[in-house]
Amino acid sequence: MQSKNIFLTLEGIEGVGKSTAMNFIKAYLTDAKKNFIVTREPGGTPIAEQIRQLLLTPSKEIIIPETELLLMFACRVQHIHSVILPALKAGQWVLSDRFVDASYAYQGGGRKIDFKYIEMLEHWLIQAIQPDVTLLLDAPPEIGLMRAKNRGVHDRIEQEKIDFFERARAAYLERARREPKRFHIIDATLPIKTIELQLKKILNQYM
Amino acid sequence: MQSKNIFLTLEGIEGVGKSTAMNFIKAYLTDAKKNFIVTREPGGTPIAEQIRQLLLTPSKEIIIPETELLLMFACRVQHIHSVILPALKAGQWVLSDRFVDASYAYQGGGRKIDFKYIEMLEHWLIQAIQPDVTLLLDAPPEIGLMRAKNRGVHDRIEQEKIDFFERARAAYLERARREPKRFHIIDATLPIKTIELQLKKILNQYM
Repeated sequence: MQSKNIFLTLEGIEGVGKSTAMNFIKAYLTDAKKNFIVTREPGGTPIAEQIRQLLLTPSKEIIIPETELLLMFACRVQHIHSVILPALKAGQWVLSDRFVDASYAYQGGGRKIDFKYIEMLEHWLIQAIQPDVTLLLDAPPEIGLMRAKNRGVHDRIEQEKIDFFERARAAYLERARREPKRFHIIDATLPIKTIELQLKKILNQYM
Repeated sequence: MQSKNIFLTLEGIEGVGKSTAMNFIKAYLTDAKKNFIVTREPGGTPIAEQIRQLLLTPSKEIIIPETELLLMFACRVQHIHSVILPALKAGQWVLSDRFVDASYAYQGGGRKIDFKYIEMLEHWLIQAIQPDVTLLLDAPPEIGLMRAKNRGVHDRIEQEKIDFFERARAAYLERARREPKRFHIIDATLPIKTIELQLKKILNQYM
Protein backbone atom coordinates (compact mmCIF):
# COMPACT_ATOMS: atom_id res chain seq x y z
CA MET A 1 0.00 0.00 0.00
CA GLN A 2 1.30 3.45 -0.84
CA SER A 3 2.20 5.96 1.81
CA LYS A 4 -0.92 7.98 2.57
CA ASN A 5 -0.25 11.58 1.71
CA ILE A 6 -3.49 13.28 2.66
CA PHE A 7 -4.22 16.84 1.55
CA LEU A 8 -6.51 18.31 4.20
CA THR A 9 -7.97 21.80 4.06
CA LEU A 10 -9.66 23.73 6.79
CA GLU A 11 -12.26 26.26 5.73
CA GLY A 12 -14.69 28.67 7.30
CA ILE A 13 -15.37 32.34 7.81
CA GLU A 14 -13.69 34.54 10.46
CA GLY A 15 -13.90 33.46 14.08
CA VAL A 16 -15.23 29.92 13.56
CA GLY A 17 -12.23 28.46 15.38
CA LYS A 18 -9.98 27.33 12.55
CA SER A 19 -6.80 27.92 14.58
CA THR A 20 -8.09 25.92 17.53
CA ALA A 21 -9.13 23.09 15.21
CA MET A 22 -5.77 23.19 13.43
CA ASN A 23 -3.92 22.96 16.76
CA PHE A 24 -5.98 19.93 17.72
CA ILE A 25 -5.35 18.25 14.34
CA LYS A 26 -1.60 18.89 14.62
CA ALA A 27 -1.47 17.38 18.11
CA TYR A 28 -3.54 14.39 17.01
CA LEU A 29 -1.37 13.67 13.96
CA THR A 30 1.79 14.14 16.03
CA ASP A 31 0.54 11.58 18.54
CA ALA A 32 -0.23 9.24 15.64
CA LYS A 33 3.37 9.76 14.39
CA LYS A 34 2.18 11.13 11.07
CA ASN A 35 4.55 13.20 8.99
CA PHE A 36 2.81 16.47 8.10
CA ILE A 37 3.29 20.12 7.21
CA VAL A 38 1.03 23.04 8.11
CA THR A 39 0.50 25.90 5.71
CA ARG A 40 -2.02 28.59 4.90
CA GLU A 41 -3.61 30.70 2.20
CA PRO A 42 -3.13 33.35 1.14
CA GLY A 43 0.54 32.74 1.89
CA GLY A 44 2.75 29.75 2.47
CA THR A 45 5.76 30.92 0.42
CA PRO A 46 7.87 34.11 0.77
CA ILE A 47 6.29 35.74 -2.30
CA ALA A 48 2.79 34.59 -1.39
CA GLU A 49 3.23 35.97 2.13
CA GLN A 50 4.18 39.33 0.63
CA ILE A 51 1.02 39.25 -1.48
CA ARG A 52 -0.92 38.28 1.66
CA GLN A 53 0.27 41.51 3.27
CA LEU A 54 -0.97 43.48 0.28
CA LEU A 55 -4.32 41.72 0.43
CA LEU A 56 -4.94 42.03 4.14
CA THR A 57 -3.45 45.41 5.03
CA PRO A 58 -6.16 48.06 4.95
CA SER A 59 -5.19 50.64 2.32
CA LYS A 60 -6.55 53.84 0.84
CA GLU A 61 -6.51 52.38 -2.66
CA ILE A 62 -9.61 50.31 -3.29
CA ILE A 63 -8.70 46.78 -4.34
CA ILE A 64 -10.98 45.77 -7.21
CA PRO A 65 -12.63 42.35 -6.54
CA GLU A 66 -11.05 40.89 -9.67
CA THR A 67 -7.61 42.04 -8.50
CA GLU A 68 -8.21 40.29 -5.19
CA LEU A 69 -9.19 37.10 -7.01
CA LEU A 70 -6.11 37.22 -9.27
CA LEU A 71 -3.83 37.83 -6.31
CA MET A 72 -5.38 34.92 -4.42
CA PHE A 73 -4.77 32.61 -7.36
CA ALA A 74 -1.25 34.00 -7.84
CA CYS A 75 -0.51 33.03 -4.22
CA ARG A 76 -2.18 29.67 -4.76
CA VAL A 77 -0.09 28.77 -7.79
CA GLN A 78 3.13 29.52 -5.88
CA HIS A 79 1.80 27.66 -2.87
CA ILE A 80 0.90 24.55 -4.87
CA HIS A 81 4.20 24.31 -6.72
CA SER A 82 6.56 25.36 -3.91
CA VAL A 83 4.86 23.78 -0.91
CA ILE A 84 1.88 21.50 -1.46
CA LEU A 85 3.07 19.30 -4.34
CA PRO A 86 6.60 18.73 -2.99
CA ALA A 87 5.19 17.73 0.43
CA LEU A 88 2.60 15.39 -1.06
CA LYS A 89 5.27 13.84 -3.28
CA ALA A 90 7.38 13.25 -0.18
CA GLY A 91 4.46 11.32 1.32
CA GLN A 92 3.57 13.98 3.88
CA TRP A 93 0.16 15.11 4.98
CA VAL A 94 -0.53 18.72 4.02
CA LEU A 95 -2.77 20.70 6.35
CA SER A 96 -3.78 23.98 4.77
CA ASP A 97 -5.68 26.74 6.51
CA ARG A 98 -7.86 27.61 3.48
CA PHE A 99 -7.49 26.68 -0.18
CA VAL A 100 -9.49 27.12 -3.38
CA ASP A 101 -12.91 26.84 -1.70
CA ALA A 102 -12.09 30.11 0.06
CA SER A 103 -12.06 31.89 -3.32
CA TYR A 104 -15.55 30.61 -4.06
CA ALA A 105 -16.66 31.79 -0.61
CA TYR A 106 -14.91 35.17 -0.41
CA GLN A 107 -14.40 36.44 -3.94
CA GLY A 108 -17.41 34.57 -5.34
CA GLY A 109 -19.95 34.76 -2.50
CA GLY A 110 -18.56 37.77 -0.63
CA ARG A 111 -17.41 39.96 -3.53
CA LYS A 112 -20.03 38.66 -5.97
CA ILE A 113 -17.64 37.72 -8.78
CA ASP A 114 -19.43 35.32 -11.12
CA PHE A 115 -18.47 31.78 -10.05
CA LYS A 116 -17.77 30.90 -13.67
CA TYR A 117 -14.57 32.98 -13.58
CA ILE A 118 -13.38 31.20 -10.45
CA GLU A 119 -14.11 27.86 -12.10
CA MET A 120 -12.17 29.01 -15.14
CA LEU A 121 -9.12 29.83 -12.99
CA GLU A 122 -9.51 26.60 -11.05
CA HIS A 123 -9.66 24.45 -14.20
CA TRP A 124 -6.69 26.20 -15.70
CA LEU A 125 -4.44 26.49 -12.66
CA ILE A 126 -5.39 23.95 -10.04
CA GLN A 127 -6.10 20.96 -12.25
CA ALA A 128 -5.86 17.70 -10.33
CA ILE A 129 -4.76 19.12 -6.98
CA GLN A 130 -7.99 18.65 -5.05
CA PRO A 131 -7.98 18.26 -1.27
CA ASP A 132 -8.73 14.72 -0.10
CA VAL A 133 -10.74 16.12 2.75
CA THR A 134 -12.08 19.57 3.58
CA LEU A 135 -13.29 20.45 7.05
CA LEU A 136 -15.77 23.28 6.95
CA LEU A 137 -16.26 24.94 10.32
CA ASP A 138 -19.66 26.51 10.05
CA ALA A 139 -21.32 29.15 12.22
CA PRO A 140 -23.51 32.19 11.66
CA PRO A 141 -21.36 35.25 10.95
CA GLU A 142 -22.64 37.08 14.06
CA ILE A 143 -20.94 34.50 16.25
CA GLY A 144 -17.73 34.34 14.28
CA LEU A 145 -17.41 38.11 14.01
CA MET A 146 -18.04 38.53 17.74
CA ARG A 147 -15.16 36.13 18.42
CA ALA A 148 -12.92 37.80 15.82
CA LYS A 149 -13.77 41.19 17.35
CA ASN A 150 -12.45 40.04 20.71
CA ARG A 151 -9.10 39.40 19.04
CA GLY A 152 -8.72 43.14 18.42
CA VAL A 153 -7.39 44.72 15.22
CA HIS A 154 -9.17 43.81 11.98
CA ASP A 155 -7.55 43.21 8.63
CA ARG A 156 -9.00 44.52 5.37
CA ILE A 157 -11.30 41.55 4.86
CA GLU A 158 -12.42 41.31 8.48
CA GLN A 159 -13.60 44.91 8.16
CA GLU A 160 -16.37 43.82 5.77
CA LYS A 161 -20.01 44.01 6.85
CA ILE A 162 -22.03 41.04 8.06
CA ASP A 163 -23.85 40.40 4.76
CA PHE A 164 -20.47 39.86 3.10
CA PHE A 165 -19.79 36.98 5.51
CA GLU A 166 -23.34 35.66 5.14
CA ARG A 167 -22.73 35.35 1.40
CA ALA A 168 -19.32 33.74 2.02
CA ARG A 169 -20.89 31.24 4.41
CA ALA A 170 -23.66 30.42 1.93
CA ALA A 171 -21.10 29.84 -0.83
CA TYR A 172 -19.11 27.52 1.44
CA LEU A 173 -22.25 25.53 2.26
CA GLU A 174 -23.12 25.30 -1.42
CA ARG A 175 -19.62 23.94 -2.18
CA ALA A 176 -20.11 21.36 0.58
CA ARG A 177 -23.54 20.39 -0.78
CA ARG A 178 -22.01 19.76 -4.22
CA GLU A 179 -19.10 17.68 -2.94
CA PRO A 180 -20.43 15.75 0.07
CA LYS A 181 -17.68 13.15 -0.14
CA ARG A 182 -14.86 15.63 0.24
CA PHE A 183 -16.52 18.03 2.71
CA HIS A 184 -17.23 17.50 6.38
CA ILE A 185 -19.36 20.26 7.85
CA ILE A 186 -18.67 20.86 11.53
CA ASP A 187 -21.05 22.95 13.60
CA ALA A 188 -18.65 25.50 15.08
CA THR A 189 -21.15 26.59 17.72
CA LEU A 190 -20.82 23.26 19.55
CA PRO A 191 -18.56 22.95 22.62
CA ILE A 192 -14.87 22.48 21.78
CA LYS A 193 -14.80 18.95 23.23
CA THR A 194 -17.64 17.87 20.92
CA ILE A 195 -15.87 19.40 17.91
CA GLU A 196 -12.65 17.62 18.85
CA LEU A 197 -14.50 14.28 19.00
CA GLN A 198 -15.85 14.92 15.50
CA LEU A 199 -12.41 15.88 14.20
CA LYS A 200 -10.93 12.71 15.68
CA LYS A 201 -13.60 10.58 14.03
CA ILE A 202 -13.01 12.21 10.64
CA LEU A 203 -9.20 12.00 10.87
CA ASN A 204 -9.41 8.31 11.80
CA GLN A 205 -11.10 7.63 8.46
CA TYR A 206 -7.96 8.80 6.67
CA MET A 207 -5.33 7.18 8.88
CA MET B 1 -16.80 67.17 -31.77
CA GLN B 2 -15.90 65.36 -28.58
CA SER B 3 -12.68 65.98 -26.71
CA LYS B 4 -10.09 63.56 -28.05
CA ASN B 5 -8.97 61.36 -25.21
CA ILE B 6 -6.39 59.17 -26.88
CA PHE B 7 -5.11 56.05 -25.14
CA LEU B 8 -1.57 55.52 -26.44
CA THR B 9 0.65 52.62 -25.45
CA LEU B 10 4.35 52.20 -25.99
CA GLU B 11 5.63 48.65 -26.37
CA GLY B 12 8.87 46.87 -27.07
CA ILE B 13 11.49 44.69 -25.44
CA GLU B 14 14.30 45.92 -23.18
CA GLY B 15 16.61 48.61 -24.51
CA VAL B 16 14.64 49.62 -27.60
CA GLY B 17 14.41 53.22 -26.38
CA LYS B 18 10.94 53.42 -24.89
CA SER B 19 11.96 56.04 -22.33
CA THR B 20 13.55 58.27 -24.97
CA ALA B 21 10.47 57.93 -27.16
CA MET B 22 8.17 58.66 -24.20
CA ASN B 23 10.13 61.81 -23.37
CA PHE B 24 9.80 63.00 -26.94
CA ILE B 25 6.04 62.30 -26.99
CA LYS B 26 5.56 64.16 -23.70
CA ALA B 27 7.43 67.18 -25.01
CA TYR B 28 5.52 67.13 -28.29
CA LEU B 29 2.12 66.90 -26.57
CA THR B 30 3.10 69.62 -24.11
CA ASP B 31 4.03 71.92 -26.99
CA ALA B 32 0.66 71.08 -28.59
CA LYS B 33 -1.03 72.03 -25.27
CA LYS B 34 -2.56 68.57 -24.90
CA ASN B 35 -3.71 67.45 -21.50
CA PHE B 36 -2.13 64.07 -20.77
CA ILE B 37 -0.96 61.69 -18.07
CA VAL B 38 1.98 59.29 -18.21
CA THR B 39 1.83 55.90 -16.56
CA ARG B 40 3.38 52.46 -16.80
CA GLU B 41 2.85 48.74 -16.39
CA PRO B 42 3.35 46.84 -14.28
CA GLY B 43 2.59 49.67 -11.86
CA GLY B 44 0.75 52.95 -12.02
CA THR B 45 -1.03 52.71 -8.64
CA PRO B 46 0.41 52.24 -5.11
CA ILE B 47 -0.67 48.58 -4.94
CA ALA B 48 0.40 47.86 -8.51
CA GLU B 49 3.80 49.43 -7.83
CA GLN B 50 4.21 47.10 -4.84
CA ILE B 51 3.39 44.14 -7.09
CA ARG B 52 5.86 45.52 -9.63
CA GLN B 53 8.58 45.29 -6.98
CA LEU B 54 7.66 41.66 -6.35
CA LEU B 55 7.75 40.93 -10.07
CA LEU B 56 11.01 42.63 -10.89
CA THR B 57 13.16 42.03 -7.82
CA PRO B 58 15.32 38.96 -8.33
CA SER B 59 14.39 36.41 -5.65
CA LYS B 60 15.37 32.92 -4.57
CA GLU B 61 11.80 31.68 -4.92
CA ILE B 62 11.04 30.81 -8.52
CA ILE B 63 8.03 32.72 -9.79
CA ILE B 64 5.85 30.32 -11.78
CA PRO B 65 4.95 31.79 -15.23
CA GLU B 66 1.23 31.61 -14.42
CA THR B 67 1.82 33.55 -11.19
CA GLU B 68 3.64 36.21 -13.19
CA LEU B 69 0.72 36.43 -15.62
CA LEU B 70 -1.86 36.69 -12.81
CA LEU B 71 0.18 39.39 -11.07
CA MET B 72 0.49 41.35 -14.31
CA PHE B 73 -3.27 41.25 -14.81
CA ALA B 74 -3.86 42.10 -11.13
CA CYS B 75 -1.76 45.24 -11.64
CA ARG B 76 -3.55 45.94 -14.90
CA VAL B 77 -7.04 45.79 -13.37
CA GLN B 78 -6.02 48.29 -10.66
CA HIS B 79 -4.31 50.44 -13.26
CA ILE B 80 -7.34 50.54 -15.55
CA HIS B 81 -9.85 51.38 -12.83
CA SER B 82 -7.74 53.78 -10.76
CA VAL B 83 -5.76 55.55 -13.47
CA ILE B 84 -6.60 54.89 -17.11
CA LEU B 85 -10.41 55.08 -17.09
CA PRO B 86 -10.65 58.19 -14.85
CA ALA B 87 -8.13 60.02 -17.05
CA LEU B 88 -9.86 59.06 -20.29
CA LYS B 89 -13.22 60.10 -18.81
CA ALA B 90 -11.68 63.45 -17.93
CA GLY B 91 -10.75 63.88 -21.60
CA GLN B 92 -7.02 63.39 -21.08
CA TRP B 93 -4.56 61.52 -23.24
CA VAL B 94 -3.16 58.48 -21.46
CA LEU B 95 0.39 57.49 -22.36
CA SER B 96 1.23 54.09 -20.94
CA ASP B 97 4.66 52.49 -21.03
CA ARG B 98 3.37 48.97 -21.77
CA PHE B 99 -0.14 47.49 -21.53
CA VAL B 100 -1.84 44.21 -22.38
CA ASP B 101 0.28 43.50 -25.49
CA ALA B 102 3.24 43.11 -23.11
CA SER B 103 1.56 40.08 -21.53
CA TYR B 104 1.25 38.45 -24.94
CA ALA B 105 4.91 39.20 -25.60
CA TYR B 106 6.46 38.35 -22.22
CA GLN B 107 4.23 35.78 -20.56
CA GLY B 108 2.94 34.35 -23.84
CA GLY B 109 5.99 34.55 -26.12
CA GLY B 110 8.72 34.70 -23.49
CA ARG B 111 7.34 32.34 -20.86
CA LYS B 112 5.43 30.18 -23.35
CA ILE B 113 2.05 30.34 -21.65
CA ASP B 114 -0.61 29.33 -24.16
CA PHE B 115 -2.00 32.55 -25.68
CA LYS B 116 -5.54 31.27 -25.16
CA TYR B 117 -5.21 31.89 -21.39
CA ILE B 118 -4.05 35.45 -21.99
CA GLU B 119 -6.98 35.99 -24.32
CA MET B 120 -9.29 34.57 -21.68
CA LEU B 121 -7.99 37.06 -19.09
CA GLU B 122 -8.14 39.88 -21.61
CA HIS B 123 -11.75 39.17 -22.58
CA TRP B 124 -12.80 38.86 -18.98
CA LEU B 125 -10.88 41.78 -17.47
CA ILE B 126 -9.97 44.30 -20.12
CA GLN B 127 -13.15 44.32 -22.17
CA ALA B 128 -13.50 47.47 -24.20
CA ILE B 129 -10.39 49.27 -22.98
CA GLN B 130 -8.24 48.94 -26.08
CA PRO B 131 -5.49 51.44 -26.84
CA ASP B 132 -6.30 53.78 -29.72
CA VAL B 133 -2.72 53.59 -30.85
CA THR B 134 0.20 51.35 -29.96
CA LEU B 135 3.76 52.26 -30.87
CA LEU B 136 5.94 49.19 -31.11
CA LEU B 137 9.64 49.99 -30.96
CA ASP B 138 11.25 47.04 -32.65
CA ALA B 139 14.86 45.91 -32.66
CA PRO B 140 16.73 42.60 -32.49
CA PRO B 141 17.24 41.59 -28.85
CA GLU B 142 21.06 41.70 -29.19
CA ILE B 143 20.89 45.45 -29.74
CA GLY B 144 18.34 46.11 -27.02
CA LEU B 145 20.12 43.95 -24.47
CA MET B 146 23.43 45.60 -25.21
CA ARG B 147 21.86 48.99 -24.52
CA ALA B 148 20.12 47.70 -21.40
CA LYS B 149 23.41 46.21 -20.24
CA ASN B 150 25.05 49.61 -20.37
CA ARG B 151 22.44 50.83 -17.89
CA GLY B 152 23.88 48.50 -15.26
CA VAL B 153 21.88 46.41 -12.79
CA HIS B 154 19.32 44.01 -14.27
CA ASP B 155 15.91 43.22 -12.87
CA ARG B 156 14.47 39.70 -12.76
CA ILE B 157 13.08 39.84 -16.29
CA GLU B 158 16.11 41.55 -17.82
CA GLN B 159 18.16 38.60 -16.56
CA GLU B 160 16.47 36.28 -19.04
CA LYS B 161 18.46 34.82 -21.94
CA ILE B 162 18.34 36.13 -25.49
CA ASP B 163 15.90 33.51 -26.83
CA PHE B 164 13.36 34.70 -24.26
CA PHE B 165 13.48 38.17 -25.82
CA GLU B 166 13.45 36.75 -29.32
CA ARG B 167 10.16 35.01 -28.51
CA ALA B 168 8.82 38.20 -26.89
CA ARG B 169 9.75 40.23 -29.96
CA ALA B 170 8.12 37.68 -32.29
CA ALA B 171 4.92 37.77 -30.22
CA TYR B 172 4.87 41.58 -30.38
CA LEU B 173 5.30 41.50 -34.17
CA GLU B 174 2.52 38.93 -34.47
CA ARG B 175 0.19 41.18 -32.44
CA ALA B 176 1.09 44.06 -34.76
CA ARG B 177 0.45 41.93 -37.85
CA ARG B 178 -3.04 41.07 -36.55
CA GLU B 179 -3.99 44.66 -35.71
CA PRO B 180 -2.31 46.82 -38.30
CA LYS B 181 -4.69 49.73 -37.70
CA ARG B 182 -3.80 50.08 -34.03
CA PHE B 183 -0.09 49.25 -34.26
CA HIS B 184 2.71 51.39 -35.66
CA ILE B 185 5.99 49.51 -35.87
CA ILE B 186 9.01 51.75 -35.48
CA ASP B 187 12.47 50.48 -36.38
CA ALA B 188 14.36 51.20 -33.18
CA THR B 189 17.74 50.78 -34.86
CA LEU B 190 17.25 53.99 -36.84
CA PRO B 191 18.86 57.27 -35.70
CA ILE B 192 16.90 59.06 -32.97
CA LYS B 193 16.08 62.01 -35.23
CA THR B 194 14.47 59.68 -37.78
CA ILE B 195 12.45 57.97 -35.06
CA GLU B 196 11.30 61.34 -33.75
CA LEU B 197 10.11 62.33 -37.22
CA GLN B 198 8.09 59.13 -37.42
CA LEU B 199 6.62 59.68 -33.96
CA LYS B 200 5.62 63.22 -34.90
CA LYS B 201 3.91 61.98 -38.05
CA ILE B 202 1.97 59.34 -36.12
CA LEU B 203 0.97 61.70 -33.31
CA ASN B 204 -0.26 64.26 -35.81
CA GLN B 205 -2.79 61.72 -37.06
CA TYR B 206 -4.45 61.69 -33.64
CA MET B 207 -4.33 65.39 -32.88
